[in-house]
Amino acid sequence: MSLVIPILLGTAREGRQSEKAARFVLEHMQAREGIETLLIDPRDFLGSAQTKAMPTEAAKRWSQTMARADGLVIVTPEYNHGYPGELKLMLDQLYSEYAQKAVAICGVSEGWTGGVRVVKQLVGIVHTLKMYPIRNALYFPNVGTLFDAEGQITDDRYVEMTQTMLDELVWLAEALKQKRES
Amino acid sequence: MSLVIPILLGTAREGRQSEKAARFVLEHMQAREGIETLLIDPRDFLGSAQTKAMPTEAAKRWSQTMARADGLVIVTPEYNHGYPGELKLMLDQLYSEYAQKAVAICGVSEGWTGGVRVVKQLVGIVHTLKMYPIRNALYFPNVGTLFDAEGQITDDRYVEMTQTMLDELVWLAEALKQKRES
Amino acid sequence: MSLVIPILLGTAREGRQSEKAARFVLEHMQAREGIETLLIDPRDFLGSAQTKAMPTEAAKRWSQTMARADGLVIVTPEYNHGYPGELKLMLDQLYSEYAQKAVAICGVSEGWTGGVRVVKQLVGIVHTLKMYPIRNALYFPNVGTLFDAEGQITDDRYVEMTQTMLDELVWLAEALKQKRES
Amino acid sequence: MSLVIPILLGTAREGRQSEKAARFVLEHMQAREGIETLLIDPRDFLGSAQTKAMPTEAAKRWSQTMARADGLVIVTPEYNHGYPGELKLMLDQLYSEYAQKAVAICGVSEGWTGGVRVVKQLVGIVHTLKMYPIRNALYFPNVGTLFDAEGQITDDRYVEMTQTMLDELVWLAEALKQKRES
Repeated sequence: MSLVIPILLGTAREGRQSEKAARFVLEHMQAREGIETLLIDPRDFLGSAQTKAMPTEAAKRWSQTMARADGLVIVTPEYNHGYPGELKLMLDQLYSEYAQKAVAICGVSEGWTGGVRVVKQLVGIVHTLKMYPIRNALYFPNVGTLFDAEGQITDDRYVEMTQTMLDELVWLAEALKQKRES
Repeated sequence: MSLVIPILLGTAREGRQSEKAARFVLEHMQAREGIETLLIDPRDFLGSAQTKAMPTEAAKRWSQTMARADGLVIVTPEYNHGYPGELKLMLDQLYSEYAQKAVAICGVSEGWTGGVRVVKQLVGIVHTLKMYPIRNALYFPNVGTLFDAEGQITDDRYVEMTQTMLDELVWLAEALKQKRES
Repeated sequence: MSLVIPILLGTAREGRQSEKAARFVLEHMQAREGIETLLIDPRDFLGSAQTKAMPTEAAKRWSQTMARADGLVIVTPEYNHGYPGELKLMLDQLYSEYAQKAVAICGVSEGWTGGVRVVKQLVGIVHTLKMYPIRNALYFPNVGTLFDAEGQITDDRYVEMTQTMLDELVWLAEALKQKRES
Repeated sequence: MSLVIPILLGTAREGRQSEKAARFVLEHMQAREGIETLLIDPRDFLGSAQTKAMPTEAAKRWSQTMARADGLVIVTPEYNHGYPGELKLMLDQLYSEYAQKAVAICGVSEGWTGGVRVVKQLVGIVHTLKMYPIRNALYFPNVGTLFDAEGQITDDRYVEMTQTMLDELVWLAEALKQKRES
């Protein structure tokens, strides 16, 4: 079964380190047969400074991306034990497009906690969006040193952990897709 | 497809009102074709006063019940915006038995909030247990008057809301069962 | 004791209804002796569409406002059971300015829940900011009808509930200010 | 100012490792001038296996302990990313005794996360109890190796971290006590 699963980066901040984590996951998803993916960068979508309303064209593009998706991977830094404003602006933009699809949530932190708190908080949010979050997650603690200057991960165990997460994500996405189409 | 979906009552307190809500859901699940259900009462399982360890026989019975289940409905009161201790003792007893199964969570409250906070908090817990929580829920606010003296619900809209919730639960339980068995 | 307690509105969306709730609280705080207050509107602060970085001048203004504050009231709608992106962008902008100050959190919703979930989620966020959140809160459910066309509240009980909340907020803000200055 | 601050252990499980963490904190609180403390063990309080109702005498003792306390330290393991049932049974037993007092929450885990999730979840619970939780916390990850066979901590940095936490706890407890008594 072929699945469409985009990756949503959680932050638009300058100097964001979590883009490295998102690109690491992207690379492994691209290498895996049967998954069509792309990186969604909030910078390409977010709207006017004042009202935060997303421009019509960007809103349409984001809606179409999720409408044809079978799942989603969120890779996000943890800010003050919560999710970044940019990520929530992206998520709040759509609604029915998310329904009955699988989602994996990955946390990134400068410190040792790997963003486990923001992952749990987002479990509650995606639940509202009628998505089904998987248990497995990737946590990227100490992001400043976990990736080297070229953005390569320095801990090999993440390769296997990524496969384990993708296994559960694909399992669930396939189960849901099969049911949606039956 | 035939599904096994028990109902877990969240409290063992004397005078518990939420038993009425659990029995209401039970009745509607029993009336629905293709669901085999039963009410799990923590009073029949919980263990010694001191260590809270569940007796061996009860632990085995609870494990066997969930092992053959395709899903679970939790009906629980909200105590101080969280879950009752008894409910957590029940949930913490098992682990692998829950994996990749569907779960619906229903909240009960004496006041007007219907337990929406405990439902959300439990979404985070069942996520850890590798269950997939559905979006629909039943909220039973003002439980002291929502049910009459005979324990009958006084608001007819709950009949339809129950069907809507069960529809999503069955949909997901079927999708997961089909995949588990394939 | 004289206290400085601004009100932070949680949303910049067009057509936002929660501004009415914020203005209701503002009015009652202005009427109360010993409190200096003002309404903080994210529209006057939020930054560039792309990176969301707050302009230097706005950042300075927001920092100075909170630095001299003894407490804060947050009035926010609940979006998908969480906080709006705009509110998080505002909160994430500062850090030490919040420390050891009192905070009250008020929720607004279109439906019946009054935003109790976003209030609880924000309790976890302000805790990270080293603020001390009070227990009392104002919940504004069904905001579309709770306020009339002129923005006047239609339920008189909110007047007394506002005083109860402000009593606890002032109590805590005074206790903390006294200790900070001793 | 002299303060009464008990320590509440979050679990009654056999073989509980978090008792070591609680005893470590106890020792440092006993060594500090101006704090009267004691360890509250749920095993000495929890009630009947069936209804979980606390025996009258134990309930009275727990009530009296918290009534004269100026604050509380909770030391708890994280079970399935949430709080143990025993801890919630203890907390749900009382209400007015907690009001307007300071609380510190410490997490313990077998894995690397140190219980940061249960600490955050409890912030939301103690908020309901009208306590004021401090920002600082002690996290005890990898508890199986963090303490040696004699129960001594093997990482010296915890001594200083404990002092930092107690500094904030005492600061807040004093501020609140002064205000309560004025």
